[in-house]
Amino acid sequence: MPNWLLQRAYLTPHREALRFEGQSWTFKEIHEEALQLASRLHGLGVKPYDRVAILGYSTKELVVLLYACMHVQVELVLLNHRLAPDELAYQLTDSAAQFVFADKRLVTAIAHEQVHTFDAIHEAPLTSFTPAPLWQKDATMTIMYTSGTTGYPKGVRQTVRNHEASALASALNLGVRADDCWLCASPIFHISGFSTLTKSLVYGMTVDLYEKFDAVTAANQIANGQVTHISVVAVMLGRLLDVLEAQGQQAHARFIVALAGGGPLPERYLQRAARLQLAVSQTYGMTETASQTATLGAEDATRKLGSAGKPLFFNAIRIAGATKPFEKGEICIQGPHVTPGYIGRFAARPATEDGWLASGDIGYLDDEGYLYVVDRRADLIISGGENIYPAEIENVLHGHPAVLEAGVCGVEDDVWGQVPMACVVLKQAVPMEELRAYCLQKLAKYKVPKYFYVIDTLPRNGANKVMRRKLIDYRPQG
Amino acid sequence: MPNWLLQRAYLTPHREALRFEGQSWTFKEIHEEALQLASRLHGLGVKPYDRVAILGYSTKELVVLLYACMHVQVELVLLNHRLAPDELAYQLTDSAAQFVFADKRLVTAIAHEQVHTFDAIHEAPLTSFTPAPLWQKDATMTIMYTSGTTGYPKGVRQTVRNHEASALASALNLGVRADDCWLCASPIFHISGFSTLTKSLVYGMTVDLYEKFDAVTAANQIANGQVTHISVVAVMLGRLLDVLEAQGQQAHARFIVALAGGGPLPERYLQRAARLQLAVSQTYGMTETASQTATLGAEDATRKLGSAGKPLFFNAIRIAGATKPFEKGEICIQGPHVTPGYIGRFAARPATEDGWLASGDIGYLDDEGYLYVVDRRADLIISGGENIYPAEIENVLHGHPAVLEAGVCGVEDDVWGQVPMACVVLKQAVPMEELRAYCLQKLAKYKVPKYFYVIDTLPRNGANKVMRRKLIDYRPQG
Repeated sequence: MPNWLLQRAYLTPHREALRFEGQSWTFKEIHEEALQLASRLHGLGVKPYDRVAILGYSTKELVVLLYACMHVQVELVLLNHRLAPDELAYQLTDSAAQFVFADKRLVTAIAHEQVHTFDAIHEAPLTSFTPAPLWQKDATMTIMYTSGTTGYPKGVRQTVRNHEASALASALNLGVRADDCWLCASPIFHISGFSTLTKSLVYGMTVDLYEKFDAVTAANQIANGQVTHISVVAVMLGRLLDVLEAQGQQAHARFIVALAGGGPLPERYLQRAARLQLAVSQTYGMTETASQTATLGAEDATRKLGSAGKPLFFNAIRIAGATKPFEKGEICIQGPHVTPGYIGRFAARPATEDGWLASGDIGYLDDEGYLYVVDRRADLIISGGENIYPAEIENVLHGHPAVLEAGVCGVEDDVWGQVPMACVVLKQAVPMEELRAYCLQKLAKYKVPKYFYVIDTLPRNGANKVMRRKLIDYRPQG
Repeated sequence: MPNWLLQRAYLTPHREALRFEGQSWTFKEIHEEALQLASRLHGLGVKPYDRVAILGYSTKELVVLLYACMHVQVELVLLNHRLAPDELAYQLTDSAAQFVFADKRLVTAIAHEQVHTFDAIHEAPLTSFTPAPLWQKDATMTIMYTSGTTGYPKGVRQTVRNHEASALASALNLGVRADDCWLCASPIFHISGFSTLTKSLVYGMTVDLYEKFDAVTAANQIANGQVTHISVVAVMLGRLLDVLEAQGQQAHARFIVALAGGGPLPERYLQRAARLQLAVSQTYGMTETASQTATLGAEDATRKLGSAGKPLFFNAIRIAGATKPFEKGEICIQGPHVTPGYIGRFAARPATEDGWLASGDIGYLDDEGYLYVVDRRADLIISGGENIYPAEIENVLHGHPAVLEAGVCGVEDDVWGQVPMACVVLKQAVPMEELRAYCLQKLAKYKVPKYFYVIDTLPRNGANKVMRRKLIDYRPQG
């Protein structure tokens, strides 16, 4: 496996690699900046296989630093800037990071002997540094801590092979063209954002990078043919659709697809997107699978509503315990994109069993082999012996015209063990009794939430996923 | 690595896989036919890792048989139907093939205990057979005997990894789209044709297959937008251009590129192709590299005239002994597409040294890293201590309006050791003295052929490459 940066600077030196804040850099330019920064990192004492933690916003500066670190072949620990200082401290301790580099706006959140601002690296001496022409496939390129599970976050290894396999499998599914340009407004410290960078290097693709998602800018880029792809979660797609509709815009003919992760999309989003010529592919992936495991082709978006599609070419999916289509069970994943394992506290825990990763998600395959993700296993509500999937109730609530967003979790109940409770963010006032009656029309009685609470916003993690376990905090005391 | 056939039948069952003689098959259909044939092969006693030799024309029947053999995971020995019985016998002995399957039109050329016609396989019993869901990357998928070298042909192993890496690297270079369709009129027993099948399975791409190259049909497919890609050698491209020009046709907007291998193209072909909107990419590859190693983008076709481009993404090229750009030496190749080695008589000969394959070709890299292939090292003429590359002289002769084709080789000479001699195929009569004078204008005197002979056709091997060593046979005796 060649050093991606060297190879891109050699093969497509004059192709546009990155756009940020109105500026643009070719692969040659970005490589040369990264190489110079790598020589300064080298001057600071950073060596191959060191753990180097990075805390920054999605800026050009961050991209160049990540590429410089790749040149030095460190193990990158990508920190989430939304975390509290204690959470950051846990990840720095758990990963035993030798160095921490932080955006100056974030550096105060870090307590570490070897913390440097990004600016400080530029003041380090230029030393003689020659990047390795080849990378080892099994070398750990990145470590990302998983959010959303109970207990301690786990540091997930992602190897060169994992990232490469993910990029190649996506290319075989979505296609790849020399003029592709991916709008990246997802955080780079998450696999969704980082995988856009790996695609850029492996494909020779332009990344149109944003520090924050801005729906108006993104909509204009899509409508003007400036970008061909974008990664979104449901809430981002919703805002994009709002803007496109409000401005009377459509997706440009050059636009290829919006890749939508982080859970199923409401049907009405797909209908609105179709009216705007905006192709949407729903995808299923996680930190442990270096981005997409399965993706639904835009052509199947309505025929297979709610499905995450079929596995990408190198991957396999099976449902634990299922003997026939439509049987639910834990989704298990196999392929070259699956992590070899964890670090730190969980280093001894195997990531896979017989090559299969147990995802912690419940789902099923239909009779054509399309994957449907039902819910997080950890979020399953068991009420009077019945399995209740919060997502099913949330989907019903999303269908009510007064509801903007809904989140459901289980609460203890003396009679049933657990019962569902719902938190709703409203577009317009509505009596809770009306929501209850609406649910009763569409759901078995035991699935109808016993409690409804109106809140301002749903609690979300860094990946913009609703944290159902935090919903319980919105329940009035006593 | 998934079983490509199973995975394609699962992921894109209804996509068109193959067109042949006016019929068409989806991936599901072709997989089901292959699976049934695999169960019959199993009934004949064919087992995984058996060597199975195949002798056939490029037909749908051949494709299904090859896919059936892949399901059984045999080592396919792909025989060239242009070979003489003694040559075939050598390859069958050298490969120790347990089974030979031959087109009934070709079966008489084979002497082997276990030879069956393709038809006979269909009469074998259907047995219970379950294909393996995963393939081993290091398993040998195909064995092809190299032509064009002196002495005994060598059986080259091509593993699953080799073919996969080749297909993926080509996708990153040429792009890949769900509606790609590759016109294949190159023999499937050669890597050029076979690699079209591997692309079909890895990409989910349609192959438009022909038993023989027919310039009129190919031109129509290109002009009508029925195909997006074609593999050609110079002589095929020349005939294509003739037809397109004669019929007043152009390449359709849907057509992407003609991939031209087997040596550099004459400049006038590129100029004519450009006028017909026919993008042409020159490529350099060989049996040992499972097809392309380097490819010149169509956008560079005239700026880097005569170059084979840059390596594909996973690959590296270096010139043995060269310390700076433009220095000539043996082209050495590294990458996951490079054969692990040979079988039979040459099993003990390492294919690579420190991971580098010595190609046997002489070339150089220019100051931007573009590869120029100068000549076969074996064809080098050394005259009075000077290196003379036959291709250089041939290129000059190709520029003369009366010359259709030219081949140059060295002949023994008492004074100079060797001197060049030229064989020319003419479009119109021309005195040999005129050709000599033409060469004197354009070449150093020692490079001007001492002998000129007019012949009807140049001797070509199964890959349509001129066999310069056979030119000596055209020299009048005494």
